Amino acid sequence: MFKRIKENGKEFGFGNSTIGKNQRIVNKDGSFNVSRRGLNIFQRFSFFHWMINSKWSVFLGIVVLGFLTSNAIFAFIYDVVLGVNHFHGIETHSPLKNYFELFFFSSQTYTTVGYGRINPATTISSFVAAIDALSGVLYFAIVTGLLYGRFSKPVPKIQFSKIGVVAPYKEGFAFMFRVANKLNHQLQNAEVRLIASEIVDENGRASRQFFELELERKEIVFFATSWTIVHPIDEKSPFFNMGEEEFNRNEPEFMLQLKVYDQSYSQDTFTNTSYRKEEIVWNAVFEKILISNENINYVDFAKFNDVNYIS
Amino acid sequence: MFKRIKENGKEFGFGNSTIGKNQRIVNKDGSFNVSRRGLNIFQRFSFFHWMINSKWSVFLGIVVLGFLTSNAIFAFIYDVVLGVNHFHGIETHSPLKNYFELFFFSSQTYTTVGYGRINPATTISSFVAAIDALSGVLYFAIVTGLLYGRFSKPVPKIQFSKIGVVAPYKEGFAFMFRVANKLNHQLQNAEVRLIASEIVDENGRASRQFFELELERKEIVFFATSWTIVHPIDEKSPFFNMGEEEFNRNEPEFMLQLKVYDQSYSQDTFTNTSYRKEEIVWNAVFEKILISNENINYVDFAKFNDVNYIS
Amino acid sequence: MFKRIKENGKEFGFGNSTIGKNQRIVNKDGSFNVSRRGLNIFQRFSFFHWMINSKWSVFLGIVVLGFLTSNAIFAFIYDVVLGVNHFHGIETHSPLKNYFELFFFSSQTYTTVGYGRINPATTISSFVAAIDALSGVLYFAIVTGLLYGRFSKPVPKIQFSKIGVVAPYKEGFAFMFRVANKLNHQLQNAEVRLIASEIVDENGRASRQFFELELERKEIVFFATSWTIVHPIDEKSPFFNMGEEEFNRNEPEFMLQLKVYDQSYSQDTFTNTSYRKEEIVWNAVFEKILISNENINYVDFAKFNDVNYIS
Amino acid sequence: MFKRIKENGKEFGFGNSTIGKNQRIVNKDGSFNVSRRGLNIFQRFSFFHWMINSKWSVFLGIVVLGFLTSNAIFAFIYDVVLGVNHFHGIETHSPLKNYFELFFFSSQTYTTVGYGRINPATTISSFVAAIDALSGVLYFAIVTGLLYGRFSKPVPKIQFSKIGVVAPYKEGFAFMFRVANKLNHQLQNAEVRLIASEIVDENGRASRQFFELELERKEIVFFATSWTIVHPIDEKSPFFNMGEEEFNRNEPEFMLQLKVYDQSYSQDTFTNTSYRKEEIVWNAVFEKILISNENINYVDFAKFNDVNYIS
Repeated sequence: MFKRIKENGKEFGFGNSTIGKNQRIVNKDGSFNVSRRGLNIFQRFSFFHWMINSKWSVFLGIVVLGFLTSNAIFAFIYDVVLGVNHFHGIETHSPLKNYFELFFFSSQTYTTVGYGRINPATTISSFVAAIDALSGVLYFAIVTGLLYGRFSKPVPKIQFSKIGVVAPYKEGFAFMFRVANKLNHQLQNAEVRLIASEIVDENGRASRQFFELELERKEIVFFATSWTIVHPIDEKSPFFNMGEEEFNRNEPEFMLQLKVYDQSYSQDTFTNTSYRKEEIVWNAVFEKILISNENINYVDFAKFNDVNYIS
Repeated sequence: MFKRIKENGKEFGFGNSTIGKNQRIVNKDGSFNVSRRGLNIFQRFSFFHWMINSKWSVFLGIVVLGFLTSNAIFAFIYDVVLGVNHFHGIETHSPLKNYFELFFFSSQTYTTVGYGRINPATTISSFVAAIDALSGVLYFAIVTGLLYGRFSKPVPKIQFSKIGVVAPYKEGFAFMFRVANKLNHQLQNAEVRLIASEIVDENGRASRQFFELELERKEIVFFATSWTIVHPIDEKSPFFNMGEEEFNRNEPEFMLQLKVYDQSYSQDTFTNTSYRKEEIVWNAVFEKILISNENINYVDFAKFNDVNYIS
Repeated sequence: MFKRIKENGKEFGFGNSTIGKNQRIVNKDGSFNVSRRGLNIFQRFSFFHWMINSKWSVFLGIVVLGFLTSNAIFAFIYDVVLGVNHFHGIETHSPLKNYFELFFFSSQTYTTVGYGRINPATTISSFVAAIDALSGVLYFAIVTGLLYGRFSKPVPKIQFSKIGVVAPYKEGFAFMFRVANKLNHQLQNAEVRLIASEIVDENGRASRQFFELELERKEIVFFATSWTIVHPIDEKSPFFNMGEEEFNRNEPEFMLQLKVYDQSYSQDTFTNTSYRKEEIVWNAVFEKILISNENINYVDFAKFNDVNYIS
Repeated sequence: MFKRIKENGKEFGFGNSTIGKNQRIVNKDGSFNVSRRGLNIFQRFSFFHWMINSKWSVFLGIVVLGFLTSNAIFAFIYDVVLGVNHFHGIETHSPLKNYFELFFFSSQTYTTVGYGRINPATTISSFVAAIDALSGVLYFAIVTGLLYGRFSKPVPKIQFSKIGVVAPYKEGFAFMFRVANKLNHQLQNAEVRLIASEIVDENGRASRQFFELELERKEIVFFATSWTIVHPIDEKSPFFNMGEEEFNRNEPEFMLQLKVYDQSYSQDTFTNTSYRKEEIVWNAVFEKILISNENINYVDFAKFNDVNYIS
């Protein structure tokens, strides 16, 4: 009757095991609520991924730390391994101040500023300074790439309604979720997929099952403002003839995937979210948010999560 | 009968409200004629998007302004917080000229030119200069990324005809729009979608409705020159048996989306436009623009918007 | 009967006009044999496209020319507008040598080398030098982006057979074309589309018509070596029951589009070519080129265009 | 009955020849086990592809080598072609030490450090130094692009099970392979295609044939953890009613392609692998690896390749 994705969740990308009753599968921000064991750090870790996705403070902290560490190491080589007499222009006489002079000489070399007051006077110090400069150029080449990766990473700025509603629809009811284009970006060809999961009693054994839900409309051509995603609770729906109490007992989760082409980045982008039973409001409709008059059309985001209850 | 996208525009990405009678939905340049309220600046604004899409004059102005501001701030630290005696090589004696000397010392540090006539003589000034240099390197790393983002952003250079026509087609009529490849770029697999919107009287209540229109041909393999997009006004069309007067009364809008793979950018690109009633010419056909003789095939863009009226 | 793309070529992306009898539509290298008139240079020209697609010699020539021109202009400002007395460290005395000193001072500033022997001694000269340095940094930021654009532009290195054949196929004949993966790149999900064009006599009027040809197989999952593209000449083909003489009289052209995901660039890539009547060999089969023995599988590209005639 | 891709492998992208009995077609790492002959080095080689895909040690080695070679050449021009008297600031007197001074002067110029102790004193030496600096800037622009290309190249970090199993499925059996998302990346819309190849006896002639196998499920929306790919051995399968012995005699190979959108790179990515008869375990099921309790869901990768035999 209804279109089951998979009994027991096996082929749903959540492995061949039962997922716990109270465990969220997809987090509110769209990430997967699953950890990994049995892999070492190199198998689990992707440097690029991490540097692209970490916070700006962390990213910049690492860049500055790498810079300072490199300067400290080269200053050690200049000062301790070689000695200040390998350099012209050092004007200090205390060991600590010498070290600082050479530390900042390294800074000037690494960033390729190269004022030249301090400069390498011997072949060996010139050689180490050349390595210092080459390291700096490559370091900032990597940083340039990572910065570009951070900026050019598509962030579609899609807003999902905090809650879903069970609203009247035609002769019956429908689950509805709302999604909006927060920026006035050109978002094209939006497609949505809605997966539901619930605990199903099968031959006396309770197991979590997954279903792809039929939608009134799966795609829109221009995603200009907001879009209400509608799953009609008809005889094809796994929630057909289910009351609120049974619904809550089944620990349902609605996982929503929105794919849209973002013209700012010339890329298809994906945004996910998920709704648990606590985030579904029964017998309510979303407040209208597109206001239109003679002079202007606008979306009122202040009312984006507002609903009107139906008595 | 005809294929309605949505009654009342709700699931068309324009929200759950009626759009005004005289409001354009999609602007001529393809952007959406909708604003946003109830979001703060950080929610509405995307730095990368803005720096990529702003005019060259604005972009370069901001880059120069950032450069000068940074120099001014570092010069303030050098001159006022530390003092000129922290530097070698300053040859001026008036406070203002000292400030300028240190301003341009900062310029030289920020761009990593580092002539070295002026150079930091103390640990603290060396430290600030190192920060100055690091800031400069990172600043220009960002600028490099943004410049690349601007250049590599696909701009398909598609030309849409300024007007559409209602032209004879088979035994009846068809809406026709013309689109051309302005550059001799390799454009592959062009796909077009045409959405119409009009005011429909439903049970005495006038509301704006949306329809996806059937096209004679939705895609072409090679988009070499120009393409006439044809919507036959047959019994499946929402405009079937509608006269010019009724048509104009219904405040129609035709929204056109062209998706095409641009080989210059190795990307799918989208270009939109829209036609209102004023931009539809009845009983006219487009002038021929592909001229072919023994020696050459060429497209005559001078005639691109020309039509011949049918008596 | 057969699947016509379009009578009169109108909706094929070649405009609403008849294309000449002897005019190639798609060139051998896949570009379109159509020029443009009635557009000014800014409408027709894309700087990024041109810098990405020009030859290396042209690209590097422009980069060097831009560098030298900039140096010459700044040297003029330094030397003629300001004068040598605005600079420290100039050791020459003849006007020409002074100009060269300042020309190379500009080179050192533009590339941010900044040796510092020559350095600006006044506020105004420091200011111009700061602009010089900023210009240089931005110039090379653009060059960096263009270089990356050139390198990262997908070049799928697909080889098409120089000729097509009319070869025996099942009980009849088929047009066959051969395409190969020249590098050992991972090419995935190759899709091919074959468009034919010929002069068709319709009610006494000869016009060029276009047809999309049915293929035995339109896509392959792994494009490891070579692929023979087969259009069976059955009753669905516009060439059914057509002899070699009639075929040649109709001035046919076969336009081939290959779309394939190139794993080196993580992009879909397109490669086109075209075959005219002179490039179709009748009654021939392609030589086998995949050689396999106990130790190795290899493709023998030396035989790639070889055919065996059938008596 | 079953869905044959191609008799004799001709249109499978492996050319029009029989592939050897004992030759692997797709390697375990997904690359193609085919070499190329009859092409010269320029036809076969792609610089960008190679620099992007080579090991880090090779890449960095080439970058350093290019840097040192360039310095050596410019030092030769400075020292031998021009002579040390064209430079200020050289403090050494032996020919070898002079060469090193100028070698490191070139390093300082190429990286744009430009300390300036050594600096060009004549027009001709200034000119060569300008070329040196320009070369350096362009060299590191290329290196920056290549570094970004290396980092931003999608590496989906998909893990395939080392072996496949023939496991009980419904009333019969199925081939099963396991694939997992090793990182907690957002992988969306995973699609899998499974191609089998085996030696088939056709009219007494043994030839290698290819089949695309039907799968229980071809795509999943969220690829969060692991996915078991299932080919039911029913009457539509080319392996229907085939025993282990006959299976092994036919030298089968299973080629698996996984396409998935990786949100870290905003790209579709492909990962391939292949299974030969030695890598197929009969009468076994995969160990469960998704563990779920009150507090956490996790994937136990230590058991990823474990199977339980069925007696």
